[in-house]
Amino acid sequence: MSFTSRLRQIQKENSSLLCLGLDTDPAKIPASLRTSENPQLEFNRRIIEATKDLVCAYKVNAAFYEAEGLNGWRAMKETVELIPEELISIGDAKRGDIGNSSERYASALFDLMNFDAVTVSPYMGEDSLEPFLRSNERCAFVLVLTSNPGSRDIQRLKVGKKFLYEKVVETALMWNRKKNIGFVVGATHPKELERVRKKAPAVPLLIPGIGSQGGSLESAVKYGCDKRGFMAVINASRSILYASSGDDFAGAARREAMKLREEINTWREKFFGHR
Amino acid sequence: MSFTSRLRQIQKENSSLLCLGLDTDPAKIPASLRTSENPQLEFNRRIIEATKDLVCAYKVNAAFYEAEGLNGWRAMKETVELIPEELISIGDAKRGDIGNSSERYASALFDLMNFDAVTVSPYMGEDSLEPFLRSNERCAFVLVLTSNPGSRDIQRLKVGKKFLYEKVVETALMWNRKKNIGFVVGATHPKELERVRKKAPAVPLLIPGIGSQGGSLESAVKYGCDKRGFMAVINASRSILYASSGDDFAGAARREAMKLREEINTWREKFFGHR
Repeated sequence: MSFTSRLRQIQKENSSLLCLGLDTDPAKIPASLRTSENPQLEFNRRIIEATKDLVCAYKVNAAFYEAEGLNGWRAMKETVELIPEELISIGDAKRGDIGNSSERYASALFDLMNFDAVTVSPYMGEDSLEPFLRSNERCAFVLVLTSNPGSRDIQRLKVGKKFLYEKVVETALMWNRKKNIGFVVGATHPKELERVRKKAPAVPLLIPGIGSQGGSLESAVKYGCDKRGFMAVINASRSILYASSGDDFAGAARREAMKLREEINTWREKFFGHR
Repeated sequence: MSFTSRLRQIQKENSSLLCLGLDTDPAKIPASLRTSENPQLEFNRRIIEATKDLVCAYKVNAAFYEAEGLNGWRAMKETVELIPEELISIGDAKRGDIGNSSERYASALFDLMNFDAVTVSPYMGEDSLEPFLRSNERCAFVLVLTSNPGSRDIQRLKVGKKFLYEKVVETALMWNRKKNIGFVVGATHPKELERVRKKAPAVPLLIPGIGSQGGSLESAVKYGCDKRGFMAVINASRSILYASSGDDFAGAARREAMKLREEINTWREKFFGHR
C-alpha cells in the first residue's frame, strides 16, 4: 500500500493527526528506569504502549540516540520494532548528501532501521533526495520552513518574488513522480503553512512547533490538512514525553496525548465536519 | 591550539593539502579482510597506516558506516581513534537541526566520536549551527556549493543579484565569531571556488570532487588556497581507497596518495612558490 494511503487509513482508524516525537533524553527518564539495560528503549516501550491508539505516527529524533553512542543506536533501531505495524514510523534524521552517499543513508534508514518515512534536507538538490524516493511505500519529508528561529536566515531569503522555502516546494514537487514526497513546515509559521498547502494540496505535511515552541494548533489543523481533513501530521514531543517526571510518566503521557488529540479533533470538526 | 593553526601546522609538516576520504564500502574491501571481526575498521587501519605521512586530514563519510548498523557505528568511532593526533579528523555527516537537537549531534560527533571537524548543512540557519561553533579547536564546514549535479537545483537559485550559495557564505561569515567556520565547495565549480575564496580569504575550504567527479585539481589549488598556499583541504576518496582491489590495496593507496600530493604540490609551487 502506498505511504499516503497508509497514513490516511491510520488517521481514520485512530481518529488522530497526532505524531508523538520520541526525543528521548536520558537525563529526563525517571530514576526507576535508569537501571534498566537500555533506559531510552525501555522509556520508549512504555510510552508507545501507553499511546499507540492515540497517534497516527511516531517520530524518532536521531540526534537524541546518536548522542548515546552504540546503546543509542540500538535503542533507535529497536524502538522502530516496537511501533505497531499499522502506525507510521518517521526517522527524523534530516539527511542529504551526494547521490552515492545518500544511497547509504537511505539504506540505513529504510532497510536497516525500517522507518516508513524520513526527513531530508533539500540543500544538495535532486540527486541527494532520489535514493529516498524510490518506493511509494516510503515517504521523504523535505525540510521547507522549519519551526526554529534560524528559519529566517536562509529559508526566507527572497528568490525573485518568492521566498526560498516556496522555491523549495515548487522544485521538490517536480521530483514527486511517485507521490511520496512530504514537507516539513513549522506550526510557528501559520500563513506560510497555508501557502504551502495551497501549492501542494495532497502531500503529507509534517508540522512540528506546537507546544513549547509556541505554534498555533488551530492553524496547524486548518491549513495543514488536505481538503478532507487528513495528511497533516502534527508533532508534539516534550509536552507529552515529560508530562510527568515520576513513575507515572506513561499514564501522564497518555492523558496529555489524549488531550491534544481531542483539541486537534475539535478543530477538525469545526473546519472539516468530522474527527 | 585553534583548529586553523593545527590545520596550517600539519599542512606544513606533511607538505600536504590532501584529505583522504574514508568512504569505506564493504563490497570493495579485499576478500582477505572480509573475515576479520570488523572489515571496515581493519581496512581503514591499513589505509591510515599506509598514508598518514602523506595527508593533512582524513574525512570519515558517516553514510558508509551508518549503512552497516552497529558494526559500522563502531568502525566509525574506532577509526577516529586510529587517526594520529596531529592529523585532522573530519566527520562528514552534514547534520543540522533545531538548536536542542543540533546540540545532540554536536555532542555525538565532537564529544563521543572526537572528530576535530564536521560538515553541516546551512538550511536551518544560525541556531542549527551554533552548537558546532562553540570551541575554536573544532571546525564546522558549512555546505556552500557541493560537487554533485543537484548543486544546481537550490544552491544556484538567484537571491537578488547573487546566487544562494554566495548568500550562504556571507551569512555564515557573520556567525564566524570564533573563526572556526569552514566551507565546502566542490572542485567541479572552479569559478565559484575563486569567488568564495575572495569573500572568505582566511577560512578553511573543504574541496571534494576531484578524481572520479571530474573537478580540476589546478583550480582547487589555485583558488582553494589562502594567499600563502594553505587552508585548502582537497579531498579524494575512491581513487585512493580502491587503487587496487587486491591484497596490495594499502601499498596501491600509498602510491596513489603520493602521486596526488605531488600533483597538488607541483601546482602549489607554481602558484605560491613553495610546497
